[in-house]
Amino acid sequence: MTLAGPVTYQCSAEDGAARRGRLVTPHGAVETPAFMPVATRASVKGLDSHDLRDVGTRMVLANTYHLMLRPGAGRISALGGLHTFMGWDGPILTDSGGYQAFSLKASITEDGCGFKSVYDGSHHFLTPERAVSVQEELGPDIAMVLDVCIGLPAPREAVVEAMERTLRWAERSVRARSREDQALFGIVQGGADPDLRYDSARRTAELDVDGFGIGGLSVGEDLGRRNESVEAAVAGLPAGAPRYFMGLGDTEGLLEAVARGVDLFDCVWPTRLARHGKVISSEGDYNIRLARFAGDDAPLDPDCPCPTCRTYSRAYLRHLATTRELSLPRLLSLHNLVATHRLLQEAREAIAAGSFAEFHRQVVARRRPAPEDDPC
Amino acid sequence: MTLAGPVTYQCSAEDGAARRGRLVTPHGAVETPAFMPVATRASVKGLDSHDLRDVGTRMVLANTYHLMLRPGAGRISALGGLHTFMGWDGPILTDSGGYQAFSLKASITEDGCGFKSVYDGSHHFLTPERAVSVQEELGPDIAMVLDVCIGLPAPREAVVEAMERTLRWAERSVRARSREDQALFGIVQGGADPDLRYDSARRTAELDVDGFGIGGLSVGEDLGRRNESVEAAVAGLPAGAPRYFMGLGDTEGLLEAVARGVDLFDCVWPTRLARHGKVISSEGDYNIRLARFAGDDAPLDPDCPCPTCRTYSRAYLRHLATTRELSLPRLLSLHNLVATHRLLQEAREAIAAGSFAEFHRQVVARRRPAPEDDPC
Repeated sequence: MTLAGPVTYQCSAEDGAARRGRLVTPHGAVETPAFMPVATRASVKGLDSHDLRDVGTRMVLANTYHLMLRPGAGRISALGGLHTFMGWDGPILTDSGGYQAFSLKASITEDGCGFKSVYDGSHHFLTPERAVSVQEELGPDIAMVLDVCIGLPAPREAVVEAMERTLRWAERSVRARSREDQALFGIVQGGADPDLRYDSARRTAELDVDGFGIGGLSVGEDLGRRNESVEAAVAGLPAGAPRYFMGLGDTEGLLEAVARGVDLFDCVWPTRLARHGKVISSEGDYNIRLARFAGDDAPLDPDCPCPTCRTYSRAYLRHLATTRELSLPRLLSLHNLVATHRLLQEAREAIAAGSFAEFHRQVVARRRPAPEDDPC
Repeated sequence: MTLAGPVTYQCSAEDGAARRGRLVTPHGAVETPAFMPVATRASVKGLDSHDLRDVGTRMVLANTYHLMLRPGAGRISALGGLHTFMGWDGPILTDSGGYQAFSLKASITEDGCGFKSVYDGSHHFLTPERAVSVQEELGPDIAMVLDVCIGLPAPREAVVEAMERTLRWAERSVRARSREDQALFGIVQGGADPDLRYDSARRTAELDVDGFGIGGLSVGEDLGRRNESVEAAVAGLPAGAPRYFMGLGDTEGLLEAVARGVDLFDCVWPTRLARHGKVISSEGDYNIRLARFAGDDAPLDPDCPCPTCRTYSRAYLRHLATTRELSLPRLLSLHNLVATHRLLQEAREAIAAGSFAEFHRQVVARRRPAPEDDPC
């Protein structure tokens, strides 16, 4: 492992297994634990880069799979790279396309993944080497190796096979890298099996990578098994490198993973919820369409400092929901991202104060599920 | 006509028939000629009230018809009125519902308009008195009388009938008003017939109203006839009151009307264009989807100071268009509103400098239609 690569991690406080730290990238530093909104096609749905700054986003994720198809990595490179293209001068991480290959049912061989474009049906083939070269063209601060994801539950042999292939692909990815100003993270696989996770983590840690994704979780597994798998992965990884849980963004899930020493997260969750009218709240998430909000002049969440809560009532936002106004997904996304960033900010403060376990307990206790009524 | 009502107009410069002035309302002053974006359902589609401030909007229009159905005028009143409800502390004008009654084919009698709700098919009846009382509940700075619109061309008798009924309804509206802190504007009708327009203007000017809409134009009439009709209406109206061309927002149309002494405009044009990928540009409007923009790293319009032009290239915005990203309508709406507000700001400066005719000529000459190619 390179210790002085283009991206470095420094831990500043520990509280049990939870840790606070700082990820330094070519485009600036990120206090961790941190959450990255997902700019699937170089845009966080409904928001722009000024919005992201306003809600406290420090780092975003973009999707290699989508960008290699539209507008194409060569096009983005010719336009000055992903930061310039999307008007975002903060850190960017790109995924490798492995998860999309899984969710879009790519045909996978030892060589790589064959898949059809969702845009025009054209055939494409992504190898570990090509995933690196595409990401080197895109130009994020952090690239991810191409990995093999499988759905859970799955037979142990299938989990082992995906994990072993992910390791072989990671070696090929490391050999293929050529940009010294771009970090490459390996990905720990191993399903919901703590022994396999530990094995995968230790062997991935032997590679020349700058940090570690924990992939293939939050795909329907039991929470207890997930937690054991995260603990095992963390146990097998070096303390000096960042740990990134791929595809996790709900309040309870984030806190469970932070409690186990994870530093970085991404998920479409806060913005996807928003597009469905759902509000992340310290008192429990809820749907703004519910009839009971029709005359409610309170903000979405009583203590929230977000632009939406400072300006609009639930009654107004519910009106936008019932009339399907185009502005609503953005207003709720601004709120949900502020809620998510604040949760991790408070987690960082609690870790520094040595009170993370108590903070975790209080957050969960406050989020009683709200009674439902009929949306109207 | 009340000269010291809740809304006053003061002219500061004249240049030919064009004039610069200031409209003072209970929620602040507006330099005129000015453009009002349309917040149909208490939201300018895709934008929020912070966006409107950012692009230089001073005053907005909201739709009585839509708001009386959803969420209801009583609801908005109970929530503190339209300004509080929509988070906008600047001036607001509401239309009366007359245009919606026309475009949704209401059945019109001497008493008022019967129509079906677009939301749930329920039956409603809007009289001149009810249009006033609904707008008094909504609480804008300026309310409009209920008028009778007809499509053009139309037989002269039909145009006369609509105009005469509009005058009778305006008298009923004036008698019905009760709020001293809310202005009421009459509406000049008369189709594309200058004689009828002059007659309508003079007789509307005899009523106790605070300003004048010019309604029923920009509905497909010949531009020469429109211009003569506007000139005739302006000739029949008092110089001390504001003149508002209802439903006009394209560059050429705005300048023609400003040249004839109109002060105020509203239209869905800039934001509707944006939702169709169309860009208002000083060099001619165009569609951002065109293939030729795929590698274009220039902003939408070379001199534009809007947030979209300061941050994003045409290539990026075209990418958002081809991938149907939710953020695009907002980014183009921000630009198109800045373009429209800037046009009128420059018109105000030209009027003050006595060079409006030359400004008008130059703007039109620069907007050569761009050659089209295939959107891809």
